[in-house]
Order: sequence, then C-alpha cells, then structure tokens
Amino acid sequence: MSDGCCEETHKDSHYSPGYYWLGNDTLKVPLVLHRENRQRLAKSILTSKDKDSIEPNSFVLFQAGKSTTAYDTDHEPLFRQEKFFFWAFGSDMPDCYGVVALDSQENPTSTLFIPRLPAEYATWLGQIHSKEYYKKIFLVDNVEFADEMTAYLKNLNCSTLYTVAGLNTDSHNHTEPLTFKGIEEFKVNTTLAFPYVAECRVFKTPKEIEVLRYSVESTCKSHMQVMRKIRPGMKEYQCESIFLYHAYHDFGCRNVGYTCICAANKNSSVLHYGHAGEPNASTIRDGAMCLYDMGAEYHGYTADVTCSFPANGKFTEDQKIVYNAVLDASQSVIKAMKPGVEWIDMHKLAENRILSGLLAGGILVGSLEELVENKIGSVFFPHGLGHLLGLDTHDVGGYQGDAKPKVNSLRTTRSLIENMFITVEPGCYFIDHLLDQALADPSKARFFNRDVLARFRNFGGVRIEDDVLVTATGCENFSKMVPRTVEEIEAYMKH
Amino acid sequence: MSDGCCEETHKDSHYSPGYYWLGNDTLKVPLVLHRENRQRLAKSILTSKDKDSIEPNSFVLFQAGKSTTAYDTDHEPLFRQEKFFFWAFGSDMPDCYGVVALDSQENPTSTLFIPRLPAEYATWLGQIHSKEYYKKIFLVDNVEFADEMTAYLKNLNCSTLYTVAGLNTDSHNHTEPLTFKGIEEFKVNTTLAFPYVAECRVFKTPKEIEVLRYSVESTCKSHMQVMRKIRPGMKEYQCESIFLYHAYHDFGCRNVGYTCICAANKNSSVLHYGHAGEPNASTIRDGAMCLYDMGAEYHGYTADVTCSFPANGKFTEDQKIVYNAVLDASQSVIKAMKPGVEWIDMHKLAENRILSGLLAGGILVGSLEELVENKIGSVFFPHGLGHLLGLDTHDVGGYQGDAKPKVNSLRTTRSLIENMFITVEPGCYFIDHLLDQALADPSKARFFNRDVLARFRNFGGVRIEDDVLVTATGCENFSKMVPRTVEEIEAYMKH
Ligand SMILES: [Mn+2]
Ligand SMILES: [Mn+2]
Repeated sequence: MSDGCCEETHKDSHYSPGYYWLGNDTLKVPLVLHRENRQRLAKSILTSKDKDSIEPNSFVLFQAGKSTTAYDTDHEPLFRQEKFFFWAFGSDMPDCYGVVALDSQENPTSTLFIPRLPAEYATWLGQIHSKEYYKKIFLVDNVEFADEMTAYLKNLNCSTLYTVAGLNTDSHNHTEPLTFKGIEEFKVNTTLAFPYVAECRVFKTPKEIEVLRYSVESTCKSHMQVMRKIRPGMKEYQCESIFLYHAYHDFGCRNVGYTCICAANKNSSVLHYGHAGEPNASTIRDGAMCLYDMGAEYHGYTADVTCSFPANGKFTEDQKIVYNAVLDASQSVIKAMKPGVEWIDMHKLAENRILSGLLAGGILVGSLEELVENKIGSVFFPHGLGHLLGLDTHDVGGYQGDAKPKVNSLRTTRSLIENMFITVEPGCYFIDHLLDQALADPSKARFFNRDVLARFRNFGGVRIEDDVLVTATGCENFSKMVPRTVEEIEAYMKH
Repeated sequence: MSDGCCEETHKDSHYSPGYYWLGNDTLKVPLVLHRENRQRLAKSILTSKDKDSIEPNSFVLFQAGKSTTAYDTDHEPLFRQEKFFFWAFGSDMPDCYGVVALDSQENPTSTLFIPRLPAEYATWLGQIHSKEYYKKIFLVDNVEFADEMTAYLKNLNCSTLYTVAGLNTDSHNHTEPLTFKGIEEFKVNTTLAFPYVAECRVFKTPKEIEVLRYSVESTCKSHMQVMRKIRPGMKEYQCESIFLYHAYHDFGCRNVGYTCICAANKNSSVLHYGHAGEPNASTIRDGAMCLYDMGAEYHGYTADVTCSFPANGKFTEDQKIVYNAVLDASQSVIKAMKPGVEWIDMHKLAENRILSGLLAGGILVGSLEELVENKIGSVFFPHGLGHLLGLDTHDVGGYQGDAKPKVNSLRTTRSLIENMFITVEPGCYFIDHLLDQALADPSKARFFNRDVLARFRNFGGVRIEDDVLVTATGCENFSKMVPRTVEEIEAYMKH
C-alpha cells in the first residue's frame, strides 16, 4: 500500500489517474467524462422548474451494483456495474455508493464511498488501494468508506438525499431498492432525481461520443471478420466465437451489451435468437440467410449492430428482394433523420419502404395505402425501428421529453434532438405464427400472394442495424464501415 | 408446432431426443445420464436409514433457475441453470420445476414442469414446443405446465414434498428459497433430501465421467493454444480471448466454470486475479511468470485447470526453483492418491514438498519439521490442495461423509473414495502482505533468508492444477496432456 506500489499499478492497469485504458491501440478514455456527467446533472436540477424545492445540503445518491454469487455457490459471475452509478462515477467496483452534492451548478462536490476490504482480499483478489488512490483515479472530491457514509453525511448536515430510483420503460422493472445502514436518519426523496439523470443520459457528450464511436467501430470490424470467415457447414456459434474473439483480443471489449444473435437458416426470423434456450447451435446451410446482431461494450458503452448476408457470400434473387427492401428502409430513414423529426414518422417511413419492396417482389398485392391501413407492416416488421443506445443497449429516456403514447412496439416516440444516439434497425422476417395469423384474418389475407409467399416460408429474416448520432443538421452513421449493399457484401465476402 | 417442425428442429439443435450435442467433433451426451441420476437419488433415499420415514406418494422437488434481467433493464444475462436441477433433469430451461417420485428404487417416476410460454415468445425467442417434445428430449415420464403443478400433484395425492434445500459449505450460502403457487397445500420437508442429492453428486457415473473428460481435454487443448501464442508485450486479456475462442469455436464450450485467471508478472500471486476489478489488464513482461487458471464447461460440467509457465518460454533458475517445488508436490500427491487416503494428508504432503523445494532453493532455512510446526507452509501456499469438481467448480459434498473439521482452508476433509473427481492444485506464491506478516513474527521470521527472499518479491506465483478421478486402485489425471515439466514446457513453447 506504499505510494510506490500504487504508482506501479497505475502504470499498468485498466485504470490510471484520470483514465481508463486497456493498452495497445485501445481507446484511452478520460474519466473527466464522468465528472462532466455529474456537473450536467447538478446543473440540470439546479436550473430546472424544481430548483426552488431543492434544500441546502442535499445530495443525489447513487448506488453501485452488489457483488453476487450464482445460486448457492461461491461462483461469482463476472461483475457488471449498474449503469446509473457508472454514468456518474465511471467505477467498476461493486458495493460502492456515490453522492453528488447539489451545492454548485458548475462544480458540485462529489464523494465516492468504497467498501472497506478485509486483509485477505490482498491474497485472493488483489492489492488493497488507499482512498487517495481512488480519488486520483476517479477525479472525485472525496473518497470515504461506505460503512462511514452515515456519519460522513451527518457531519455535513445532509438534509435530503435524492435517490436515483425509477421505472425502466423497456423492461417495466423498477431500479433496485437503494438503501444503506443509517438511511433512516435522512430525509429521502425517491422521485425527483430520476428523470433528470435519465434525461442527461439521453444526450451524449463529446467524450461519451468518442467512446461510443470506438465501441461501434470495434464492433463493425469484428462483424467483418465473421463475414470473411463464415462458410456453409460451420455452426452458428462458431461465428459468435469469432466475433467475441476479435472484439476482446483486438479491441479490449470483454463484454457484449447483449447476448450475440447469430442466426442462420430459418432462425434468422427469431428476433432475439441466441439466448441459452436457442444457443446459436444450428449448422449454417449453403444458401442460408444469416442475421448477426452483436455489439461490443467498451468502458460500459455498448454498440448494437446487425449485419445480414447470405452464408455463401452470394445473394439469390429472392434474398435480394427482401434485403433490398430493408436496405431501402435503412437508407431512407438515415437520409431523413435530423433534429425535429418524429421517430414515429421514421418508423412509418421504414415500414412503407419495406412494404413497397415486398409489393415489387410480388409477395404482397394491393396498394401501399391499403397495406398500411390494414397493418400488414407489423406482420413482417414486428419490432420498433430503433432505440436509444448508450450504457444500456435499450438506453433510458425513450418515454420522457416530448414522447407520445406508445405505438408499434416502439422503444421511443420522441422527436429527434441533437446528440441523441439511436439505432436504426428496420427488419423483414417470415415468422410462421404471424403469417398464419394474418392469413387467417380475411382483412389481411387478401394482400398476400400465397404462391410467392410459400417460397419464402423458410427464408428467415433480414435486419440491418446501424448506430446513428443525431447532429445539428442531420445525423452521422457510426457503423457505416460495414459492407451494406448487395454489391459491397458480395465483393467483401469473395475474399 | 406440427410434428414435422419439431422433427426438423430435433435434427439441428443442441437438444435432440435423448441427446445434447453441439455438432461436428463435440461430445454427444446421452441424456439418460440424468435419468440415471434420478434413479441413483431414489435408490439412495429408499435404501437409507431414513427409508422408513418416507411417506407414500412423496416426491423430491427440484427448482430450476429463474430468468432474470440486469438491474432495472431488460438486458437478460446469458442464463445458466441451477446445478441441482440440472443434475437431475439436464434441461437448460429457466422457470421449470421437476419432481422425482419416491415410488421405486429402480425406476422412479419423473415429471418436468415447464413454463407456459406466451404466443409472442415465438416471435422473439423461438419456436414453442409441445410437452411431448420435451418428454422425448429429456426422457422423463411426464411433462406438465408449471402453472398446473399444484393440481397435478394433488391429483396424485401427493403427501410430502422433499425440497432440495441446504447450505453450501464453500460459499456458506443457502440454496435459493424454493416455492411455487400452492405449495402451502402440501407437507414440505426441507431437510431430508439435500444431503442425499449432494452425496450423489460427489460420485460421478461413467456417463458423467465422459462429459468431464471432454470438458477437461477441451480445456487442456485451449490452454495449449495460449502457450503457443503468448508473447511478452501482449496484454493478459489477449490470452484469455485466445482460450475462450478455442474452447467455444473448437469444442462448443460457451461458458467457463469461473472467470478466467490470466495473471502475468506479480499478478500471479493474486489467487483469484481476473475478476472485474483486476481484469487481466496488465502487459505481459519478458521474464514474467504466467499463471493461467481457466476451465471450460460443456453440458454444465466444468474443468478447472491451471498452467504456469514463463511468458517467454524459457525458465530462469529462480523460476525453476519455485516451479519444480510445486511440480514435486503435484506429482507426489497424484502418485499417492487412491481410495482410503485422507485428503488432509495429501495437503500436508504437498506442503512438505513445497517447503522442501524452498529449503533446497535457499529461500528458507531450518529443518522441514520446524517449518511445518511453525506453519510456514501457509505463507507460501495459503489455499487448500484441491476441491471436488463437477457441475460446480467448487462442487458440493466436501463436508459430508467422513469429513473431519476444517483445516488449512481445505474445501474438503474427506478421505478419497472411488469416482470422486477432485482438483490437485498445489501452489507457491510470494504474497507481500503474507510475507510481511511472517517476517514481523519472530517465531516465523527466523526461517527466511531475507537476501534470497528479496530476489523473489516480484516473482508472482506458480500453481499447477490437474483434474483427477479417483479410481478403484489409484487415480487418473484427466489433464495430463498439458506440458508439465520444465523440459516439456520449454520444448512446447519453442514452436
Ligand atoms: Mn438494437
Ligand atoms: Mn481449482
């Protein structure tokens, strides 16, 4: 625990004073990113309509994730930090707390509370660092032990703790209960802070944008390795292993934001394939359509990119029909995106382009207007066009601001604002039970050409997913490096 | 949900009627393995001292793991099954229950209760299969919906449910509370079954042994890839990525039994390095001692193998001193292991060999007897010699049977019995705070040659871990294919 020792560790670990970095060509992330987040939060509350209700000596309180074990065993699954806490402090340590004092708009005082580690920690888990060490790393004003939090806050005459507690609009889960020994000695407000923190998380800062750019580009390059190495006859999970290897080995991404979806054959019509019950275990057939939805995470920020392509590198005419319909949707949306645009309108635009493609391909008959009116779109495109993206794959805040009531499974119904980061992921799938439902419904059945449809029953599906930043005048597609057109994909996969 | 469709799925998925298989050269596991486990359990209870207390129409009740999300989000971490349930039923499906009727020693009736899935499951997560499908796969007598479990059991005049509930002696955690809607309508016995199930899990059947052999050999081959590809200047986590890639790509092991420990430099003296707080993030130095403790899991059964070697492929004389002391311990123990041998004696034997090596190397002075008497062994070798291994890395049952009171951090104190599967993992580490403690204690300090010790302060540590089956007359080392002697390692790493 000598200074020399800490200095030594500083030089060769993922955290050093003010930085997160995994060495070599990986991104060096300045941890002032999180101090800026704390500042944004204090400013947003202290300049809000609620500002006059904020009492002196009050704090926003964050709670880190708890260390856990699997079932009754002593197996500790790889810890992943709670994302609100991470957003504010950038620390991956379990069992911490953090407070941001509402004492200044520009430079609120921040304190990180760390667990007091037993001596045997040094034998089993690693060097025990000093409070001073963590203060230097995370650029906070104070570091204290978590078991002294109550005394510390009382000493500061803490009046109110604003806890970060609220409802997640994707999962409909509430945040975990926030508590600590002695919390009953303070006034606790569980409602005020959450929407301010969530709203801050919606808008990415330049420093956050650089991390996201790195995660997305690392993800794209790892996808491209899969496209180079895939061959019919391989198992789907072998492609997952190739992605995971490159994301970690080449770019330092130990985690993915979500379980890899590596669907070939008809499996590409299962939207969230790849989970433990459908573990990417099929053999990739020659002629199969592949749908690979995989996103690597760096310093907590995740990408979410989907590439669809034929397993053998050459599109059939039928595959071109579906693929180009989805590509048209993707390109049309990205071209139209800019501040002020309604996300609901973008979803409708995508749906229209997909339906137009299916009409042109002869799978559907009738007019586009009739198809829309009779909700044929959601038979083929049953999920929303996209979602906010950041520390969570389905990032928070989709139903704040100017959000309209939920439609079409959309994860946000807001209009676009500069510095939102959002996925654009139109898709077209041949899902048996949705097709059967539609064919059994006379108002819908009349739009299907059953003979042509029969050809596509085992097609699977296509999804094209990009990660897009809303800019002042339009948008920037961070995942544009992956081959996207039929010609680009065929040329790239030839090698 | 037509039969044809199920048949199609059967042919190309991880589960088919009676088998788990990931294709290509991966192991095809007969699921009768789990029926045998259910039979073993019924027989062990029905022939035990408790047999007369077992009421007619009673059942042993198992509870699968629950599907979960991370914090408040809709992110579902990759599901991993609860291991008692898996042992009995071999299913990786969350939210299930299973009962084994105590109606026959040879062929107890078994019923699997599966969740009733909503129609949209087919869109998002995959095909919804029939009860008949699961019955064929898992070789159970009945499959019912979990929401009908109470009615089903009442209809069978169920008298008592013996739940699998107990204390894990490694984690000191209790099993998760077992409950379901309607459980209050039955007599529940929470104490009888657990020790019987745990004791069955201690002894591996021929079919379980084949799975473990596959997991261990897959693990060894993946370790050897790391030994071939490691170079000074690489990051530790790049070696982790190489191991994970081969374990998954080549052998179908999606999970590891525990987080990979990829320690180079002084980090190799941190016993459980590699967790999120110490994420294998150092640069591997030329001359560093590496300690790689990694184990791949196949069909729930995990390996646990450690290889230690110099990063540059060539041992220094100091590295040879420590490595050969540990190798001597390992070889001496494996030579001595056979039924009837006390595990405590094996630990002492390992400690003696390590201390002898350190005496010969001049790090310690005095006689072996004095060193043992003054507990110098645990300064360098602070963990137990090994642990039962199977579905859990630290498998259950270490403190049942003829176990003696706990000594020296040992995870079991039983004598060896045929078909136990156990790790042999002697280690020698230079851990600053343990060395400092010892040097500050006059009864210990006199045995250290401080000048020589100073040379080893930044050495790190060595662990050699094998996975060993106790046989009728001795033992079989399943991990013997990895290079182990100094000569073998240097020759293998030259290429
Ligand atoms: Mn997405
Ligand atoms: Mn072990």
